Amino acid sequence: MEKVTNYILENQDRYIEELKDFLRIPSISAGTENKKDIQQCASFVADKLTAAGLSRVEIFQTEGHPIVYGEWLGAPGKPTVLIYGHYDVQPVDPLELWNTPPFEPVVKDGKIWARGATDDKGQLFIHVKSVEAFFKSNGSLPLNVKFVLEGEEEIGSESLAVFLKQNKDMLKCDAVLISDTSLYAPGVPSITYGLRGLCYMEVEVTGPDHDLHSGSFGGAVANPINILASMIARLQDKKGKITIPGFYEDVLPLSKKEKESIKSLKFSEKAFAKELKVAELKGEEGYTTLERLWARPTLDCNGIWGGFTGTGAKTVIPSKASAKISMRLVPNQDPKKIAKMFTSYFKTLAPKSVKVNVKALHGGYPVVVPLEHKVIVAASEAMEKAFGKKTVYMREGGSIPIVVDFVKNLKAPAVLMGFGLDSENLHSPNEHFDLNHFRLGILSSSYFLEGLSQKG
Amino acid sequence: MEKVTNYILENQDRYIEELKDFLRIPSISAGTENKKDIQQCASFVADKLTAAGLSRVEIFQTEGHPIVYGEWLGAPGKPTVLIYGHYDVQPVDPLELWNTPPFEPVVKDGKIWARGATDDKGQLFIHVKSVEAFFKSNGSLPLNVKFVLEGEEEIGSESLAVFLKQNKDMLKCDAVLISDTSLYAPGVPSITYGLRGLCYMEVEVTGPDHDLHSGSFGGAVANPINILASMIARLQDKKGKITIPGFYEDVLPLSKKEKESIKSLKFSEKAFAKELKVAELKGEEGYTTLERLWARPTLDCNGIWGGFTGTGAKTVIPSKASAKISMRLVPNQDPKKIAKMFTSYFKTLAPKSVKVNVKALHGGYPVVVPLEHKVIVAASEAMEKAFGKKTVYMREGGSIPIVVDFVKNLKAPAVLMGFGLDSENLHSPNEHFDLNHFRLGILSSSYFLEGLSQKG
Repeated sequence: MEKVTNYILENQDRYIEELKDFLRIPSISAGTENKKDIQQCASFVADKLTAAGLSRVEIFQTEGHPIVYGEWLGAPGKPTVLIYGHYDVQPVDPLELWNTPPFEPVVKDGKIWARGATDDKGQLFIHVKSVEAFFKSNGSLPLNVKFVLEGEEEIGSESLAVFLKQNKDMLKCDAVLISDTSLYAPGVPSITYGLRGLCYMEVEVTGPDHDLHSGSFGGAVANPINILASMIARLQDKKGKITIPGFYEDVLPLSKKEKESIKSLKFSEKAFAKELKVAELKGEEGYTTLERLWARPTLDCNGIWGGFTGTGAKTVIPSKASAKISMRLVPNQDPKKIAKMFTSYFKTLAPKSVKVNVKALHGGYPVVVPLEHKVIVAASEAMEKAFGKKTVYMREGGSIPIVVDFVKNLKAPAVLMGFGLDSENLHSPNEHFDLNHFRLGILSSSYFLEGLSQKG
Repeated sequence: MEKVTNYILENQDRYIEELKDFLRIPSISAGTENKKDIQQCASFVADKLTAAGLSRVEIFQTEGHPIVYGEWLGAPGKPTVLIYGHYDVQPVDPLELWNTPPFEPVVKDGKIWARGATDDKGQLFIHVKSVEAFFKSNGSLPLNVKFVLEGEEEIGSESLAVFLKQNKDMLKCDAVLISDTSLYAPGVPSITYGLRGLCYMEVEVTGPDHDLHSGSFGGAVANPINILASMIARLQDKKGKITIPGFYEDVLPLSKKEKESIKSLKFSEKAFAKELKVAELKGEEGYTTLERLWARPTLDCNGIWGGFTGTGAKTVIPSKASAKISMRLVPNQDPKKIAKMFTSYFKTLAPKSVKVNVKALHGGYPVVVPLEHKVIVAASEAMEKAFGKKTVYMREGGSIPIVVDFVKNLKAPAVLMGFGLDSENLHSPNEHFDLNHFRLGILSSSYFLEGLSQKG
């Protein structure tokens, strides 16, 4: 390993130069203007994989943007790691807010500034360079590696979903390694081991068959807005618990280790509230904010509409009122089961005086990998070695659909080893990536490959 | 009186011909296209008042359309009745749905068909012709009469409000007689003696200072839509009572006579529900539908909005959610007092995690005249004599702002002696007016003038 880590340290300046070349390609996946750049970027990535030493590199054209695949399977009997990343980037508007042009990368203050620096070119490149270091210093990898690098992450990964379904055998692996998330704090090794799922519903309450005058009819007929409001209110009790019968029955409670790990993060609720400019946080009783965000299911209205919403006073009792209501799910809740539960319960909340229509708009499964899983342990030890600090464990409140796609199709655990920072302006002007994290990331990646190979 | 009623019966065909002339003038008050027609119509009305025998007739120009004023004050010591009506009409769109052109009146099936027939030219003309009958047969009226006929009722009566304020002395009277409402049913003499008031509020609930991702933040911060929904839900209890402390303290309960009168109407809740296509009516427990509509205050959301309302699933926790909430008030509730009560109570319903903004958009006072008042008694007796049936007493669930303006400025009771029918397509194509009600109206009006004069 010493040869490998020496190689990384000796070559880091060249790595940064190559990353700059990567960042110069305006591989914006939205719209059609950058179709050529996307193709060029896929070729660039494929060339780097070949140069790193992989035995098979192929560009798969899709209905959308190409997927670059690479593999080296020269370690029979050893585990296979599939590394995922995306080479496409977000659009750059508003351009006038950038301090330097988004596709002319510059290094300043120990950071590299360009669109895609942290999301996800810089992070993707970490693993390409760690693999290169093994080949150049040892001539081989300690285990088998597959790369799946897509060009549609910023626009929904539709082609990837198809690709995963169609190439299950080729992509077979023991673990999926993804670097497209953030560190808990600068310099703190962090692993994301769980994601919430989603169940997104739309509801419509209909009272009278047309809008009525609130003077002539107010008090005699059910008002769909008032009814909808009280139905929404009844979805949660005073303690913030969701009242849908059976809603919590599949919820996996946090283990003692997880609870302690969350506690050790010393998350400041005060600072969090201050940042959001709210006087007080609010959530399910009996849980801390991080527990609520990472390990507890929630219910939020994402939109509501009905009646007169213009300026002034129109005295109408509307015929209809609607809302979008979504639930974040946690392991092992099933979005399809929850959608059914929601639908039948929500309908029971309505009086006979209205009709209720409920439809499920979207669902996503939650994901969790036990902290004791050898992949998590190997990732944790690798990051600790590289960063020289204890690894912290995080979950993510949102869902990352591709992670679910990988886990479901390949039946392999995913480990999210993110090296970005939430403050690095991903999706915004002046995106950047800390070069210290870039270097520590390459070291972490190589320790991980080595470490996992030893765990068999 | 026999001379008067004979005159009416002998001249009814001519009256109808004159009403046709009145209806031929396209006195649409909305827009500016018919400004000349409005002026012509005001002159027509003034001429008819003069021809009827009034001693002073004057057209008052205003910022908007003219107000026609007429008076005869030749009965000193006798009461003074102020008769209100409006000579302007609604627009006629959609024109293609009219069976005959809107300004070419035709008589068919005992009805006269034209825009303005029932709202309000036909009803207004009733009193002009009743006054004419007195002058032509007796040479005088049994009491003093004032006419205030405006041309802006369909666009908000702004000039009238100013006119009332500026001419309180000239308009001084003992009763205001208005024929711009409907009979309870064909051939049933009906008096509207009460109107609900209004208190219209707008509320805004603010959580975090910008929209948040419901994955990253869901469960940890108050969601303004969920909060607003539960605040709205808490404005009413399970029995449909409004929970604002003190809300009912000024409510005048229905008298025994009023309750019996409402009961006698044999209102069909089933037919009402069927018409609105709802499976069930809904309202405050312990009251019938007519009691709820006429004599009980209510609370309705007239509009609600917040978050994502487009197609599909956007996972947002919005910064704000808003609603329009209005309350119908009954005698003797004060809209200003209620607005204050609402504001302070509504704010108490919010948790500390959100900010609440409340503003009063609009208010209107409720009106009621006791059934025992001599004006109501005279009107009731007059209609019974003309129609040959017992008079029924109604209230109106909505507010009629001009009625409140009259009552507040002139400190006189208003009696709403409507001769239209809700089914006569007012504001719609094929507006019409039952000519039997036109004739019975003129008789009712003359019996009223005679009857009230005798009550001193």
